Amino acid sequence: MPGIALYLAKHCPFCHRVELVAEELGVPVVKNYIDLSAKPHWYTQQVHAESKVPALAYGGSITPGINSDPQPPSAGSIILTESSLICEFLSDITSFQNPKFSTILPPSNPLVRYRIRSFVDSISASLLPAFMGFLRMGKPADGILAGVEKLQDNIVATGGKKESGYAVGGGFTLADAVVVPFLARMEVTFSNDIGTYPEGEGKKLWETLTTDPKYEVFQGYWGRIKELKSFQKTFDRESVTATFTEKYKDRKAQ
Amino acid sequence: MPGIALYLAKHCPFCHRVELVAEELGVPVVKNYIDLSAKPHWYTQQVHAESKVPALAYGGSITPGINSDPQPPSAGSIILTESSLICEFLSDITSFQNPKFSTILPPSNPLVRYRIRSFVDSISASLLPAFMGFLRMGKPADGILAGVEKLQDNIVATGGKKESGYAVGGGFTLADAVVVPFLARMEVTFSNDIGTYPEGEGKKLWETLTTDPKYEVFQGYWGRIKELKSFQKTFDRESVTATFTEKYKDRKAQ
Repeated sequence: MPGIALYLAKHCPFCHRVELVAEELGVPVVKNYIDLSAKPHWYTQQVHAESKVPALAYGGSITPGINSDPQPPSAGSIILTESSLICEFLSDITSFQNPKFSTILPPSNPLVRYRIRSFVDSISASLLPAFMGFLRMGKPADGILAGVEKLQDNIVATGGKKESGYAVGGGFTLADAVVVPFLARMEVTFSNDIGTYPEGEGKKLWETLTTDPKYEVFQGYWGRIKELKSFQKTFDRESVTATFTEKYKDRKAQ
Repeated sequence: MPGIALYLAKHCPFCHRVELVAEELGVPVVKNYIDLSAKPHWYTQQVHAESKVPALAYGGSITPGINSDPQPPSAGSIILTESSLICEFLSDITSFQNPKFSTILPPSNPLVRYRIRSFVDSISASLLPAFMGFLRMGKPADGILAGVEKLQDNIVATGGKKESGYAVGGGFTLADAVVVPFLARMEVTFSNDIGTYPEGEGKKLWETLTTDPKYEVFQGYWGRIKELKSFQKTFDRESVTATFTEKYKDRKAQ
C-alpha cells in the first residue's frame, strides 16, 4: 500500500476525527503535527492551498510513526482534504484491502451506513455550530443541550443500549469519530471555563451535562468513549488545554 | 429484498438524482409522484414531517412500477430522507447484494470514491447555489459559469477525456447523478427564459454555455448525458417545463 502521511494540529477537532479513525482501523500512518501559527514554508504549496488541516498525502514510501519535524509529502503524492472525506477514504482502503475486516467503519450494512451518514449530517448542523457559537462568540447554550439530546435520542433509536450504546447502535463507527473530538473539546473548555461566554457559564453547563439525570445516556456514552484506547492514544489533553487557554486568555470573540 | 417505495416530484432536481441512480443501478422501485401543492393527507405523518421530497420507504412487499395514485408506505417501513444519502443507500444495497456488480456507484476504488464525494461537496457549494440564486432571485450569473468551469476541470483532472469523460473519470457515477438534474433544469429554464433574472439573460447564458468554445468540454459532456437511457427515462421535459413556467409566470422572486 502507498504510504499515508497526515498533516494535523493537536487542538483541531477535525484532525482528531482522522486520528481516531486511523487508530480504530489500524491503518499505518505518519503523523506530521503542524504549528498553525508558524507553518513550514512548503505547506501552502505542497499540501493545502488555504493552509488548512487536516490533509492526507497518499503515495510514496514512508515509515509510519510520528514526525517530530514535519516533512513535505513524497513526490507524486495525491493530497486529500476535508476530515469526513478523509475518514471515509481510510475506511474504504481498509475494507477493500481486507473485505472480511470485522470492524469496518461504517459497517457493511446499508441501513446502518445510512444511519451513520444521516447522524453525521444532523450533528454537523446542530451540536457542532452550537458549540462553536457558544465558545467563540458567547451565543446561547440552548443549541448545545439540544444537540446532546439529539445524540442521546440517536443512541437509543438506532438500537444502542444506555449501558453500552454508541452514536449509532452497538459499536464505534464513523458517527462517533465525527462527534467525539467536539465533546472532548467541550469538556476541556467548559470545565476550565475557557471561551468568550460569560464567566462561570462553561462550568455550569458541563456540570449540567455530566450530573443532570436528563443526560444520563450521554454520561454513560462519554464515560465509555474515554475508556477507549483509540481515544486515549489520540487525545492529548494537556496540549489541547494549553492551546485553548492561550487562544481565549482575553475572553475575546474569535 | 424488502420493497422500496420512492416519493418524488417531477420538477424537483433532488428527486431526479434518486431516480437516475435507481435507473442506473437497476434497483426495482415503486415511484409515487406527489403533488406538492396538494399533498395526500398521510404524507406528513407517515413519510416526511416537513413534507419534503424525495423520501424512500424501505420495507413491506410492493410491486415495482409507477403508482399513478400515490400510496402510503407499508406498515413497518423505514423512512430515509436527503437525496444524496438515499443515492448512497441505493448504491450500497446493490453492491452488498452482488459484490461483483460491475457498475457500482461509487466504484470500488477508494481514490475514485474520494474524488466523487469531493466533487459532490464542491459542486453543491458552487454551481447549485449559483443556479438557484440566478433563477429565484436574479443574482449575477458569474457563479454559474465558474461552476461549469469547475465541472470541466474535474472531468479533465480525474482522467475523463473531452470526447468521453464523465464528471469523475470515464463512467457515470454518483457525481453525475448529483449535478445532472440541475443541468437539465438549467437547460429548461434558461433556454425558455424562465426565472426572476432580467428578460433575455437566461437565453443568452444558455447560448454561451452551449456554443462558446470555452465550454466545449461541458458541451461534449452534456451531449453524452442526454443520450443516456437513464436520463431519457427519468427526465420528463414537458412536465418539468410546465411546472417551472407556471412557477415563474410573474417573474417574481421565489
